[in-house]
Amino acid sequence: MRDFGPHSGVLSIDLGALSQNYNIFKKRVGSHVEVAGVVKANAYGVGLQPVVETLVQEQCPQFFVATLDEAIAFRSFNQNTPVAVLGGLFIGGEKEYLKHNILPVLNTSDDIDRWNALAVERGKQLPSIIHYDTGMNRLGLSADEATQFCQRLNDYQGIDTQIIMSHFACADDKNHLMTPEQATRFSEFAKYFPNAKKSLANSSGLFRDDAYHHDMVRPGYALYGGNPTPETQNPMNNVVSLDTRILQIRHTKKGETIGYSATHDFDKNSITATVALGYADGFIRAGSSKATLYYKGQPCPVFGRVSMDLITIGIEHLNPLPQVGDAIEVLGENQSVDDLADACGTIGYEILTSLTERYKRVFI
Amino acid sequence: MRDFGPHSGVLSIDLGALSQNYNIFKKRVGSHVEVAGVVKANAYGVGLQPVVETLVQEQCPQFFVATLDEAIAFRSFNQNTPVAVLGGLFIGGEKEYLKHNILPVLNTSDDIDRWNALAVERGKQLPSIIHYDTGMNRLGLSADEATQFCQRLNDYQGIDTQIIMSHFACADDKNHLMTPEQATRFSEFAKYFPNAKKSLANSSGLFRDDAYHHDMVRPGYALYGGNPTPETQNPMNNVVSLDTRILQIRHTKKGETIGYSATHDFDKNSITATVALGYADGFIRAGSSKATLYYKGQPCPVFGRVSMDLITIGIEHLNPLPQVGDAIEVLGENQSVDDLADACGTIGYEILTSLTERYKRVFI
Repeated sequence: MRDFGPHSGVLSIDLGALSQNYNIFKKRVGSHVEVAGVVKANAYGVGLQPVVETLVQEQCPQFFVATLDEAIAFRSFNQNTPVAVLGGLFIGGEKEYLKHNILPVLNTSDDIDRWNALAVERGKQLPSIIHYDTGMNRLGLSADEATQFCQRLNDYQGIDTQIIMSHFACADDKNHLMTPEQATRFSEFAKYFPNAKKSLANSSGLFRDDAYHHDMVRPGYALYGGNPTPETQNPMNNVVSLDTRILQIRHTKKGETIGYSATHDFDKNSITATVALGYADGFIRAGSSKATLYYKGQPCPVFGRVSMDLITIGIEHLNPLPQVGDAIEVLGENQSVDDLADACGTIGYEILTSLTERYKRVFI
Repeated sequence: MRDFGPHSGVLSIDLGALSQNYNIFKKRVGSHVEVAGVVKANAYGVGLQPVVETLVQEQCPQFFVATLDEAIAFRSFNQNTPVAVLGGLFIGGEKEYLKHNILPVLNTSDDIDRWNALAVERGKQLPSIIHYDTGMNRLGLSADEATQFCQRLNDYQGIDTQIIMSHFACADDKNHLMTPEQATRFSEFAKYFPNAKKSLANSSGLFRDDAYHHDMVRPGYALYGGNPTPETQNPMNNVVSLDTRILQIRHTKKGETIGYSATHDFDKNSITATVALGYADGFIRAGSSKATLYYKGQPCPVFGRVSMDLITIGIEHLNPLPQVGDAIEVLGENQSVDDLADACGTIGYEILTSLTERYKRVFI
């Protein structure tokens, strides 16, 4: 029986594997290309501070977060390493960027105008990151905005363009035609900024073509063990393991049902285990009657609906039967983040970022 | 333009509405029935401490959480009000229950044996809550275990049974036959414990039949504004409102696509807004191309995939067009938790418990 202490489940984060993953990228892109760390959403649910501290030890030169709040949280434990906000220059928060030495990614003409105005007000240029949209249609300068900006560079005396970037929409799909198209658009735009660092590739993109590496790559998901190249075996090391415990073992009878709305019927006598895990722990409800958990390497199907705090699994086929208190693997050796996502009809990113504070977190 | 300060979104929790909801239950069940508060999963994602403090002011006599960790968190700010752990007597945590004056819900014969042993060791009876399973097949004594327990009550000198309880599986479905069957089973079991308080009904159950009220009801979801009676208009007050902000407005062209995997095509020129909200904020990814957000009461469809931190919505039909920085309603006057859940193919409980710490929380 595993010792969980008073906790219902334990989430183990392998910071050594995180370092190894970071070095896989470094090796892949070569010493002339910087590998930035994308640590938005609490480092994809893994834990911002330990992840950043681990990557800083590996000489990670630049971090990206999604929101200003996240960047301020970053600055609470790291005052020096460059950190940029992918969401842009949040209106109403402008002074906070300067106060905490945080860079916005300038996504719009309006972002650029307001950042330039801040620079003029301060009487000195501000380092700037310009995001050019090459097809994602989410954030970044449109082609028209980019053209205008390039034509009027002299009007933006406050803007010191240090990085230009764009973001792939479909790089996880090996042969998607949009990826080289986006790369071409990016290279066209890049010509206007000979002195800026160029950054295009995310986790998947950096494995697709060395031409996408430019001066800086920005892996996120694959840092945490997600597979950046779904068509092949995962080149990354597993970072996240999650075990929960059996709370009760039940002998169910033919004709009985299980869980909310009684969606699972037993057509014969069976044996189930109720485990301490539910959608409030981030085990998404779409896994009801679909997902699988593991006991000592043996798959156990989820029976019926995932509840807020509990899941029931079938264990009749196990020999010997597990005991109350025994550990059940949710993520780990037998089930990757991508595997669980497949079973739940989503992507591993959502599995990771759904992990909640209800687990005890152990960093190893 | 709404002032979000430096924050990307604001989650407003109306504690007055929570109080009103609590009093709706009190009125419904009458003064002879206790209304316990179910505050597991950080009070359904709303925030444990402010919820408990509000309900304590309304004389809530008993709280329930899911795990021992949650009960210990409860005790960090409230040392006196009874709190019980629905997950049972976690192996390895036994001493913590006694140390913090926390009651386990005794779900199994093994739970009862270990709790009794602790009582014997201490030389005094321990207050006890016995959970009898009446059909959920998740936690609670089976019929066989219950029979054995009732026959051997004298062997459990340490057990002072103060509450007996069970849990409905299908009470949200007004006419489900399982509900009265469960109630009958519970009443049979209850006969053995004339001096214990009986508790059966959850949020939905307490609206179904006054006979289910017994001595204590245990509402959870409806406290936070969820509809306990889906076949009628929601009798509860809305507690949770969520607004996010527009980061960028885009004029998309015919033939372009939007978002990851380019799942949404534009068959004509259009206008979209990119808002600061994604599945890492708890806006579940199943809402991709399905859910709706609101601008000043006008519905705006989600276009393409929900990203980790961003969603794009169609705004072409709005007149006047919104501006960057304007607020977009996710939950509130125009969209309830249940509405959003319907659009995403899940239940409001999952919407609530997915709300993350990335929003600024305002308690009003």
